[in-house]
Amino acid sequence: MRVLILGGDGYLGWPTAMHLSNRGHEVMAVDNYLRRRICREEDVQALFLVPTLNERCRLWREASDHQVHARIGDLSEWSFISEVFQEFQPDAVIHYAEQPSAPYSMMSRRAADLTLSNNLGVTFNVIQAVREYAPDAHIIKLGTMGEYGTPNIDIEEGWLDVEHKGRRDTFLFPRQAGSLYHTTKVMDTDLLWFYVRVWGLRVTDLMQGPVYGIYTNENTDTENLAPFFNYDELFGTVLNRFIVQAVTGYPLTVYGEGGQKRGYLNIKDTMQCVALALENPAEAGDLRIFNQFVETFSVNDIAERISRVGNELGLNVQVKKLENPRKEAEEHYYNPAHTGLLDLGLEPHYLSDEALREMMQIALKYRPQVREDTIFRGVKWN
Amino acid sequence: MRVLILGGDGYLGWPTAMHLSNRGHEVMAVDNYLRRRICREEDVQALFLVPTLNERCRLWREASDHQVHARIGDLSEWSFISEVFQEFQPDAVIHYAEQPSAPYSMMSRRAADLTLSNNLGVTFNVIQAVREYAPDAHIIKLGTMGEYGTPNIDIEEGWLDVEHKGRRDTFLFPRQAGSLYHTTKVMDTDLLWFYVRVWGLRVTDLMQGPVYGIYTNENTDTENLAPFFNYDELFGTVLNRFIVQAVTGYPLTVYGEGGQKRGYLNIKDTMQCVALALENPAEAGDLRIFNQFVETFSVNDIAERISRVGNELGLNVQVKKLENPRKEAEEHYYNPAHTGLLDLGLEPHYLSDEALREMMQIALKYRPQVREDTIFRGVKWN
Repeated sequence: MRVLILGGDGYLGWPTAMHLSNRGHEVMAVDNYLRRRICREEDVQALFLVPTLNERCRLWREASDHQVHARIGDLSEWSFISEVFQEFQPDAVIHYAEQPSAPYSMMSRRAADLTLSNNLGVTFNVIQAVREYAPDAHIIKLGTMGEYGTPNIDIEEGWLDVEHKGRRDTFLFPRQAGSLYHTTKVMDTDLLWFYVRVWGLRVTDLMQGPVYGIYTNENTDTENLAPFFNYDELFGTVLNRFIVQAVTGYPLTVYGEGGQKRGYLNIKDTMQCVALALENPAEAGDLRIFNQFVETFSVNDIAERISRVGNELGLNVQVKKLENPRKEAEEHYYNPAHTGLLDLGLEPHYLSDEALREMMQIALKYRPQVREDTIFRGVKWN
Repeated sequence: MRVLILGGDGYLGWPTAMHLSNRGHEVMAVDNYLRRRICREEDVQALFLVPTLNERCRLWREASDHQVHARIGDLSEWSFISEVFQEFQPDAVIHYAEQPSAPYSMMSRRAADLTLSNNLGVTFNVIQAVREYAPDAHIIKLGTMGEYGTPNIDIEEGWLDVEHKGRRDTFLFPRQAGSLYHTTKVMDTDLLWFYVRVWGLRVTDLMQGPVYGIYTNENTDTENLAPFFNYDELFGTVLNRFIVQAVTGYPLTVYGEGGQKRGYLNIKDTMQCVALALENPAEAGDLRIFNQFVETFSVNDIAERISRVGNELGLNVQVKKLENPRKEAEEHYYNPAHTGLLDLGLEPHYLSDEALREMMQIALKYRPQVREDTIFRGVKWN
């Protein structure tokens, strides 16, 4: 298939580009380097340098003989996205092109504004470009489990059957997210669901939990092909951050009581899930929703696992409960369904001590470059 | 109170400005004339000319001795809205400043883009400006009953208690709207609800049904102070459009089977509802939602009422069922709650033959100016 990957330079975008080209798809990766720009502006860095998208494509071609096409530009500009669609004529569009940091979205008015206009602007343009230039293309949208928040009922896979005063209907599962970033994804869903109903688009919304890890089948040999591995508060996902904290002797930054439960997955499973969604497309007129994670942990669970494995490696891992800068429940019910992707054939990589050791090894390799001052900033939600 | 009316030049904005200044409030009306601009561009007109906002303020001062302050500018520009807030220091903000036409929002990509970025951009800026300059101000947001769509269960007033697998929680009532315009209002609600939870804003969301009418307590003597009365497909609400169709001998444009039910209200009741919400503010941290209408009709009900009253006046009113250009259910369950505003003291003006005759009289007065070619355009939803 001809697969357009929007946000193809990101933590998940680039691994996805390699993975799908490895599976025989014709891939074009598009990015405006927004994450690189924000990291520069906010003075944070990934654990190791990552080549430009064009350079990555050259390195990947040398390593694999697969060609990934790259285009650099802003998908919220219609003139650019329409060129990309007309040129590439995609069969499927994987939409990662969003400002992905919850703390960044809460940091300032300007950061919130950028998050809102970028994320909705790109999603809107994707819908319009599909409609005009590739009406049968399958849109695979990265949503987030964070859209649901932490309700007091079981979280179903996208939809909820409601019985009310003796009558029944089915609705999108209620969404009430915990950051502006997550709220923009709720709004993306509103927009996609509307145009699915009116125009019969085919859409898969992948409600993903926090991802951890660095290695996929395509980058085991060289960090040159590895994704951004951020350990700062803005762009590091919690497990990745804790790994770097553990190896640098920085006490693990548990917010509040640490009882916050989420559904996690290894980046290897993100690759599987996206490929499964791509190769088993949604029907026209269908908004298909999968909850994309393989197991749930509390923050305390993760801190304990990392402490134990780190201490076995001779690290002296400390845990520090900090006053929670966010506004979130620290103890709550959490029971989300996640059978859809398993039914399609997902074979989960559960969090193993081996996976944690592997991540610690790479963090140890780059330990001298870690900037401890960027680990915790304490962006406050209010 | 010091009341900022955003979208103060609009069909409801200007009558609200007069009404609240008449009730002793200090009022500033702000508008960027977006509706006037779109009407010019799309070559449609209101039934009679309406003076500029500044001129209306002068005329109203002459008529009533009340001063309404006017500012012209684009509230989606931060530099402008922050000036307005710093200067006026509102106790309450009534937010009508949205592109309000469903057909316009479905007409083209550019029109959709304008609708999305204007409506969300202004709502976002209102939230941020309140936070920075008037943190205790009460935001009164005009939502729409259209956010709920036409579910197969009773529509409650904003919220739904859900019991699911033996556990309970309360959520925003499910929203699935019928146009992009209505969908932007769903997204506005997402945004407001998020910042209410995180920042403790005080917000009232008025889920209003289609409004009809022209006279309020403040403009009975002169059309100079009357609101825009649009009869074109883009900006005319259904009942107002049918009135003009009836007096010009244009068959009433019923879409499809005409069984579409909605909750209606007289513009006099919009005035009451907004004043009641203003003078009984929401608590800090509360998103208070009222369903703002007084009675439900199907399109056929309205067509029949107008035909009967029109024929009694000697008009020869025809009804024509057209192929529905929209995507909507033409026969559906509809039972929305609407007790909140009644509990606050709303005294409804139900649709009377007298009210219809009064509207027909003014339409007859301006009949020579009616442009029949603008009545039906048939903007298609797909």
